[in-house]
Amino acid sequence: MIKNESDILAYIQKNINTTSKNVIKSIGDDCAVIKLSTNKSLVITTDTSLLGPHFTKNYSPYEIGYKCLATNLSDIAAMGCKPKYLLMAITIPKLTDAWIKSFYKGINQLIKKHDLTLIGGDTNKGPLSISFQVIGVNNKKILYRKGAKINDDIYVTGKIGMARAALLLSKNKKKYKVLKKFLHMPTPRISIGLAISNIANCCIDISDGLAKDLQTLMSQSKKGADVFIEKIPTHHVVKKTLTRNKYLEALIEGGEDYELCFTSSKKNRNKIKSLSLKYKTPITIIGTVTKSEIKYLDNGNMIKLNLKGFDHFSK
Amino acid sequence: MIKNESDILAYIQKNINTTSKNVIKSIGDDCAVIKLSTNKSLVITTDTSLLGPHFTKNYSPYEIGYKCLATNLSDIAAMGCKPKYLLMAITIPKLTDAWIKSFYKGINQLIKKHDLTLIGGDTNKGPLSISFQVIGVNNKKILYRKGAKINDDIYVTGKIGMARAALLLSKNKKKYKVLKKFLHMPTPRISIGLAISNIANCCIDISDGLAKDLQTLMSQSKKGADVFIEKIPTHHVVKKTLTRNKYLEALIEGGEDYELCFTSSKKNRNKIKSLSLKYKTPITIIGTVTKSEIKYLDNGNMIKLNLKGFDHFSK
Repeated sequence: MIKNESDILAYIQKNINTTSKNVIKSIGDDCAVIKLSTNKSLVITTDTSLLGPHFTKNYSPYEIGYKCLATNLSDIAAMGCKPKYLLMAITIPKLTDAWIKSFYKGINQLIKKHDLTLIGGDTNKGPLSISFQVIGVNNKKILYRKGAKINDDIYVTGKIGMARAALLLSKNKKKYKVLKKFLHMPTPRISIGLAISNIANCCIDISDGLAKDLQTLMSQSKKGADVFIEKIPTHHVVKKTLTRNKYLEALIEGGEDYELCFTSSKKNRNKIKSLSLKYKTPITIIGTVTKSEIKYLDNGNMIKLNLKGFDHFSK
Repeated sequence: MIKNESDILAYIQKNINTTSKNVIKSIGDDCAVIKLSTNKSLVITTDTSLLGPHFTKNYSPYEIGYKCLATNLSDIAAMGCKPKYLLMAITIPKLTDAWIKSFYKGINQLIKKHDLTLIGGDTNKGPLSISFQVIGVNNKKILYRKGAKINDDIYVTGKIGMARAALLLSKNKKKYKVLKKFLHMPTPRISIGLAISNIANCCIDISDGLAKDLQTLMSQSKKGADVFIEKIPTHHVVKKTLTRNKYLEALIEGGEDYELCFTSSKKNRNKIKSLSLKYKTPITIIGTVTKSEIKYLDNGNMIKLNLKGFDHFSK
């Protein structure tokens, strides 16, 4: 019986051809990878954004365009690659001059910043839905979700928890104003992804929450982790405002911050420190890779978390 | 003011970067083309299919899956290329075991037939919407919409007009039964596209109707055409059943047959005849490329057509 996204994936993997010569990575990572030559590959990702799960009515069209593309670019960043080409299939209910222009301006902000080329697309009339496809290339190594080694440091870029906190604090106008930019306009970590690509052992972007995404990294790497909650970097408003339970929810279950979570050998600490300075972005050690089992520790005390993963079809 | 699809395209082309090194073809053909090496390129297309404009409630989930992929493959065929890799972003209202399985079986029929690999995708909950992205490679030359030469023969593969005739005759159960397979399950002309790729001068798939698609070929080639209506091949049910006006509508304005329309030098007539035999598919000369202006002739008499192009946003 097909009841959720995982069942669809399992059905596809059992019944449909998902591998062939030159397909280095198929379904199951942030991007698919096609080998072009010994050192050159293409990475490809597609994501759809919808009113409801991905953006709400209080997003401006500019923010909708920006975020839809940012989340796709984040998948390329998580593979340690450089985004290059872009296709978009959009469905919009009606053509409003102001909406269209603002929407494409949001997209264009990222196209300009990352020197992308929009090479194709399709436009239809119907319920708002935006699908991007981004094609990137590797500079050095490609990062996958698997590859973590025992005793690796576990890092996150930037600060996390703000996207969920924005939702939790949406009625507090002042706090929401500070936090909503993290929810509406996340920064895809392209430069850092490229810079760590030859020193990180595995990488994912935190779209489904640290707990679920770290779980994916560790289960694909067949490893465990000790996570030090007190070290997880967040915005001071998140720390000061939320109750203990909501704070943990924002930090660990939140997602949608689109920061990178990766692991790297202890010997790379200095290199990563300089990258953090170079890109003016915190890159923080939040844990250690262990043999098995993921443990969350708060100043040395083990915390029992009761987390649900996100599934579009769960009730 | 942005009022239709062409306005969106014009806005994009004016404001957004659509060209760069290695992008041989961007927005404006059946596929985008990225150069990999001297003789090797990738062709890429994306199309969204929606309930309403692309399929209706009397399509089975099998047919929906099949047709959505077929229309994308047809774009690769129109470039004279071989489809290889596939991504799909689908949004479905609810998970029904039977629906999902039947839908993927329809997709899998074409995946198996054309030896494709499904390498990625995204699944969401919402109003039914299916976006495929297909990546192909060239064997020989890549076909574009421009390139027609004066005195070239104009060809169509297969027979056309059945898709529109199916809609026009949807209340006639017997006739509809004969015609609906052409509307619901078009055949992407991959093998023929590949086979003609070094002898055709330009090519398009007939998705928007012969008139609109031929107009595109000729305006991009800066040429005209004489089209001989009596030579356009169609199904005998279309010919026998429809009134004169509806017959012309089906044949010339119809679209959705996803046959190829291409031009080739007169010297290739014998080669194309043998391809027709080899692939057991009619490949018929329906006209000649001229210096300018597109004329429709019916047994020598000029016909004045009053055609509207299809636009998702026109009323």
